[in-house]
Amino acid sequence: MDTLCAAYPWTQSPLTACAPMRLIALAPLAVQVSAAGGLGFIGAGNDASNLSSLLEDAKALQADDQRLSQVKDILPVGVGFLCWAGDKLLNEALPVLEKYRPAAVWLFAPRSTQDLVKWTEAVRRSTDGKTKIWIQVGTVENAVGVTKACNPDVIVVQGSDAGGHGLHHAAGLISLLPEVSDAIDPHLTRDAEGNRRPLLVAAGGIMDGRGAAAALALGAAGATLGTRYLASPEANIAKGYRDAVVRAADGGQATARTKLYDQLRGTTDWPVEYGGRGVLNKSWSDAEKGMQFEENKRLHDEAMARGDEGWGDKARLTTYAGTGVGLVKEVKSAAAITKEVREAARDVLKQIASAM
Amino acid sequence: MDTLCAAYPWTQSPLTACAPMRLIALAPLAVQVSAAGGLGFIGAGNDASNLSSLLEDAKALQADDQRLSQVKDILPVGVGFLCWAGDKLLNEALPVLEKYRPAAVWLFAPRSTQDLVKWTEAVRRSTDGKTKIWIQVGTVENAVGVTKACNPDVIVVQGSDAGGHGLHHAAGLISLLPEVSDAIDPHLTRDAEGNRRPLLVAAGGIMDGRGAAAALALGAAGATLGTRYLASPEANIAKGYRDAVVRAADGGQATARTKLYDQLRGTTDWPVEYGGRGVLNKSWSDAEKGMQFEENKRLHDEAMARGDEGWGDKARLTTYAGTGVGLVKEVKSAAAITKEVREAARDVLKQIASAM
Repeated sequence: MDTLCAAYPWTQSPLTACAPMRLIALAPLAVQVSAAGGLGFIGAGNDASNLSSLLEDAKALQADDQRLSQVKDILPVGVGFLCWAGDKLLNEALPVLEKYRPAAVWLFAPRSTQDLVKWTEAVRRSTDGKTKIWIQVGTVENAVGVTKACNPDVIVVQGSDAGGHGLHHAAGLISLLPEVSDAIDPHLTRDAEGNRRPLLVAAGGIMDGRGAAAALALGAAGATLGTRYLASPEANIAKGYRDAVVRAADGGQATARTKLYDQLRGTTDWPVEYGGRGVLNKSWSDAEKGMQFEENKRLHDEAMARGDEGWGDKARLTTYAGTGVGLVKEVKSAAAITKEVREAARDVLKQIASAM
Repeated sequence: MDTLCAAYPWTQSPLTACAPMRLIALAPLAVQVSAAGGLGFIGAGNDASNLSSLLEDAKALQADDQRLSQVKDILPVGVGFLCWAGDKLLNEALPVLEKYRPAAVWLFAPRSTQDLVKWTEAVRRSTDGKTKIWIQVGTVENAVGVTKACNPDVIVVQGSDAGGHGLHHAAGLISLLPEVSDAIDPHLTRDAEGNRRPLLVAAGGIMDGRGAAAALALGAAGATLGTRYLASPEANIAKGYRDAVVRAADGGQATARTKLYDQLRGTTDWPVEYGGRGVLNKSWSDAEKGMQFEENKRLHDEAMARGDEGWGDKARLTTYAGTGVGLVKEVKSAAAITKEVREAARDVLKQIASAM
């Protein structure tokens, strides 16, 4: 078993994780991913007010699964936080983390690296180090800074192809992951068994076994998927959103990273360097044609009343998704996705290596 | 030997090619890449007026190499053309291609797919099909269109991380390559031996064996590198340019795709959807701060008189390079780069597969 999987004993190699998509990745999705031998993350986002209830849900679902029910000292799912929300979020989250001990926290988008130090120390202390620290970065400089300041268990390296929020100015995994890997190398620590910390996990544009295999070749120990899991029944999204994901093709052309969708949705607290990648739609094309924001917002809000009809490339509601969205052709259970990605990654690598 | 390498009998698997960088990839670079078992491309760009002389250079250098001198029916390098230049370029190039029969032409950036049909038919006719047709695309739609219209030997799939010219609106290889692979599948042809055409070759952000291995995992049969070869003595660039490439780090942050560098250099014939990725410099930051173009252009042209001092993140001359530029840490011979990429790709894949 590889080092990364060893930390989460129900998982199988290569580790396949579900990204902590805010409002979308709740207990049903996260637990199903873990039950299939992956690591599911619940997206708590910038708000811990209902975290206790989310983790209680996860605990109940864990009890229903034969393998997961044998995991005793931790809850076999992780939780993702948007650290720009500040100390209030940390203070609300800590007692809940202490009580449930999720397998990991995934920290993203702090105002400063010092915020991550605070989170890392507090979570390790509150959970006796049972809850592993995953920190997401999008630049080499940030990866080195976080390694030195926090010595996390995992650095999630997010490339420009990621759906939802990421850096406006960014590189894809093909170059970012190896450069991060080389740059943090002098700063890695090793435990008594010689295992290195942090390990790298790749995010951004990975949709299937090919992408996961590529991530391993680039230096990652595991892969996370967000967009692919949108087309699972366990994802907490409207049918209109899910249909728009399945329909979109040519993902580099059909999506863009922008602040427009955040503005239309009223989610304006993100640090300025982040934008949300979503499927291009009528809101986008009207904005490109010069429509005033107030009018665009009014039409967007009207579309909210139209339910599932409100989504799609001719409609107005936001379909956050990565450039890999064109690879999503059907709805599958989160467990099937997890198993297929893992097994296909192994098959792809074995097949190519054996042909060499 | 794999199908792609079989078409170029001096090459070794996995095929490693040098991109046809205009003004930079001339005969010395292209022949050295081929001599090391790769496939070097000469960048003819939008001008065939000196193509005869470039290929005569390549022929002379071929004669100096023991292995390449045994290649008789073709010239063991390729030639890249910027098809937006129109019929004049094709008409000038054809008799030269007929005479020298380069191993491949690499066609990029046409005004329309119909231009590619014209090139493909003319080159095949003039060279008795000896010269293979490589066509570069940046979208899934384009890959399918080109497959149906031209049935090329190779589709070069260019991701958003590429240095120099590429689509402004684009996906990285991690998602683009598998989506292209799936989308063209119904349109592939098979020869008597069951070999499929076109094969895919990956471009954009590949700097070393890890990137090449990832490209294979994503569905490519080979990889092309541009930026990595800038730091070889055989690349026809100024020391100042080469030093700027070696110095740059955190390539997603240090580079951007923009029209600014083309405008400053007076290269304004590219179709509107393309921009050039280069290292951010003083021209860029001044433009961001609102400096008028005329003033920026004046300072840029003054910097041209300063020679090697004119390049760098604090200077003004253009350093086209991809997001992988941070992985370029030293100058190496083109032959060493070619051999290292190929062998490291094999090692990476075998090592990961054996650990599964």
